[in-house]
Amino acid sequence: MPSSWATFGRDLHLDLSGPGGRRAGLIRALRDAVRSGRLAPDTRLPSSRSLAADLGLARNTVADAYAELVAEGWLTARQGSGTRVAWRPLPDGGRASTRPRTGPAARRTPVRAGRPDRPRFDLTAGTADVSAFPRTAWLAAARRALTAAPSEAFGYNTPAGRPELRTALADYLARARGVRADPERIVLCAGFPQGLSLLSRALGPGRIAVESYGLDFHRAVLTRAGLDTVPLPVDAHGADTRQLAGLDDVRAALLTPAHQFPTGVPLHPDRRAAAVNWARSAGGYVLDDDYDGEFRYDRQPVGALQGLDPDHVVHFGTASKNLAPALRIAWMVLPDRLVDPVLELKGTGEWQSGALDQLTLADFLASGAYDRHLRGMRLRYRRRRDQLVAALAERAPHVRVSGIAAGLHAVLELPPGTEQAVVEAARWQGLALEGLSRFRDPTAPQPTRDALVVAYGTPPDHSFTGVLDALLRALPPAL
Amino acid sequence: MPSSWATFGRDLHLDLSGPGGRRAGLIRALRDAVRSGRLAPDTRLPSSRSLAADLGLARNTVADAYAELVAEGWLTARQGSGTRVAWRPLPDGGRASTRPRTGPAARRTPVRAGRPDRPRFDLTAGTADVSAFPRTAWLAAARRALTAAPSEAFGYNTPAGRPELRTALADYLARARGVRADPERIVLCAGFPQGLSLLSRALGPGRIAVESYGLDFHRAVLTRAGLDTVPLPVDAHGADTRQLAGLDDVRAALLTPAHQFPTGVPLHPDRRAAAVNWARSAGGYVLDDDYDGEFRYDRQPVGALQGLDPDHVVHFGTASKNLAPALRIAWMVLPDRLVDPVLELKGTGEWQSGALDQLTLADFLASGAYDRHLRGMRLRYRRRRDQLVAALAERAPHVRVSGIAAGLHAVLELPPGTEQAVVEAARWQGLALEGLSRFRDPTAPQPTRDALVVAYGTPPDHSFTGVLDALLRALPPAL
Repeated sequence: MPSSWATFGRDLHLDLSGPGGRRAGLIRALRDAVRSGRLAPDTRLPSSRSLAADLGLARNTVADAYAELVAEGWLTARQGSGTRVAWRPLPDGGRASTRPRTGPAARRTPVRAGRPDRPRFDLTAGTADVSAFPRTAWLAAARRALTAAPSEAFGYNTPAGRPELRTALADYLARARGVRADPERIVLCAGFPQGLSLLSRALGPGRIAVESYGLDFHRAVLTRAGLDTVPLPVDAHGADTRQLAGLDDVRAALLTPAHQFPTGVPLHPDRRAAAVNWARSAGGYVLDDDYDGEFRYDRQPVGALQGLDPDHVVHFGTASKNLAPALRIAWMVLPDRLVDPVLELKGTGEWQSGALDQLTLADFLASGAYDRHLRGMRLRYRRRRDQLVAALAERAPHVRVSGIAAGLHAVLELPPGTEQAVVEAARWQGLALEGLSRFRDPTAPQPTRDALVVAYGTPPDHSFTGVLDALLRALPPAL
Repeated sequence: MPSSWATFGRDLHLDLSGPGGRRAGLIRALRDAVRSGRLAPDTRLPSSRSLAADLGLARNTVADAYAELVAEGWLTARQGSGTRVAWRPLPDGGRASTRPRTGPAARRTPVRAGRPDRPRFDLTAGTADVSAFPRTAWLAAARRALTAAPSEAFGYNTPAGRPELRTALADYLARARGVRADPERIVLCAGFPQGLSLLSRALGPGRIAVESYGLDFHRAVLTRAGLDTVPLPVDAHGADTRQLAGLDDVRAALLTPAHQFPTGVPLHPDRRAAAVNWARSAGGYVLDDDYDGEFRYDRQPVGALQGLDPDHVVHFGTASKNLAPALRIAWMVLPDRLVDPVLELKGTGEWQSGALDQLTLADFLASGAYDRHLRGMRLRYRRRRDQLVAALAERAPHVRVSGIAAGLHAVLELPPGTEQAVVEAARWQGLALEGLSRFRDPTAPQPTRDALVVAYGTPPDHSFTGVLDALLRALPPAL
């Protein structure tokens, strides 16, 4: 939140006036900043020395204020991690201190400050390592893109999104994901949920098959758009798309073929064919949520399903995993007959998104910066994954790990009935993570498997060994 | 579209192969680029000399290809304006070559290329001069903002939008618009229509009063959100808010108090008071659409209505008129009890917008760049307005002009029954503009006034004298 530590106090507009002197004023001002959300949870505060210098106070005054706020639960202090804003409970309706309400992070429960089990590291699935956002390369692309952009780019743009980005994506998706893309059939949207909502509304009311393991907020988007969801069982070959043929009135199937979320298996080639054959014969659509298809480590990426039949498969991609969720840029590659209905809905003016980042991403793709960034991230995630697998093989060989050929998370199988206890134990070790049952569609008849979903992308490098130690301490011993 | 003329051919991936030689190949490739939308309407093509050099062709080959495409109606060539992509009719459903479908521009009808009445200048109300977007200052702000941003800013953000921007806006709105703002009551959205839609849904079903002159797509947003609109007459003192007290079941009134759109009058102080008094006593809300409140030329801006009663007035502002519609950044300052319902709706993940431009705008505001830009634009628009008023006074003194104290457009009163003919005449003079009747709520009992709505912000400086000449030729002579 502060633009730099040196200007922390000024940028936060800390007002130290009022009764009780400077120490009381600082406590009050910091408390207000936390309460109002100007200081977000987990923000690291400057050292007492530097804040004191910045505000012209004695260092002890600041140190005392910090100590008081730690005692009150507003801040936390930990050796090596500095003084940080605490995650707080939500007495006020949860505005200021909730975690984001969208994206996979929306599922997380805020935890009470000051409890010994406050997680220090976030291993919940769904977020990429945003600390690796390529700021310098992005700014260079922005400079090129904004300098070259025609004036009309700054005006009202078409609902489909900037043609520069649609053209760059068509090239990229053909090359990297085997998508048969045409800029005219690409519609840009502000994240996957918006695309899914637009498409669902364009399909009209009816039923849609969804994988029995997945994200509840995706099911919620479908329901709000007027579709009824029907669970499709997931096994070691991915979603059982053979069952689609036996379902009545299903208009579409939402799948994660490249890397089932969260179990991590790729959809078996026979199941891929079954999905597309069903769509063709039933006049339905397969929605391919290709959320992390680029992060495949041990062999070539599994090609996007859309290449099999662009008239019956909608390809969804996003910049959230590959670059940053903050961009809110995702894309749909649509069958021709869905383009106009989707643009009609998007053209109401309520769904538009900014064009400048679209222009920048177009340059980022065309200049090769995107490929360079992905190569770097793939190496980084792969190293993380290898460390996790090696640690488990050495110190917990009884724990089977799966879903590791791709993506940013792994699934650790647990003995039946232990999942909740292990999640709790991990929390006591300072790790936020979730059990597989968290992702199960509650309406699915399929029985629960006990497993942990472990995302390994976000902890900082220097702490990853400690994170693995903590995880291993939380796992049940061999029987 | 091309990132520079020097790389135009390469960036467009012009494929000159195929039957009939290079000239035929170039014609085919350019036609495809226009048809597919890769070359947008009105894009200026490089000179035949520079495209020839870029593609390694003889200059005559390119000149011949341009001439052929002009003859076919794909391109237009005009002295002084170069070769440009034509606005085309829409045989294919209108995707590639339609004008934007949202914002005021969405109301415009595409015109056929090659007809003698093709408008060369756009005087329709609703767009700012986007050619004046401060690219360099914006990029400098982006560099500062992205360099200083905490890592979490690149992750999933809260539905309210970045706290940096909400804080900067709270300061700015208090100072410049008299808004009693608090960052916690500001919700950022992707343009005014999104904010209006979110708020309407939060209000729940019921009736809403709207000015009898306004934008039809605003009424459409309200209707889609489940509200029934009730027209409120507009006269020389603005909307007649005294009538609100006599309307049953009205939950809110959508007004443009600073500068009624499109008639241009500020809301009379008595009417301001009547609106707020009604909201207070009826438990309703006034929605203040402050779309161009900063552009006031002859005296201090009319303060935002919200300052009178922050618990019953919602303040809406936007960066579309002051910076660029392409940003898709607007804001609502909400009464406390509407904050949670609005965030609840926005938090579904379908409405989120990008955070990087929010961070950049926060820096742009806090660094003073926004004030500098507004000062420059105010001078520029004011000069334009003065030229228009002077030309009318000198050469058409019988035409009364109003609504000129603020904003980016003026209203020219016409003799009864002449409006449509004048709009047509202006089109023959190469000007796209609209009559006042275009903005009248068709359900309003109020009779039509004949008038022209003339936006003067967008024509380039060097052509503005010519635009005024053309406008004067279209006006009816004195009786």
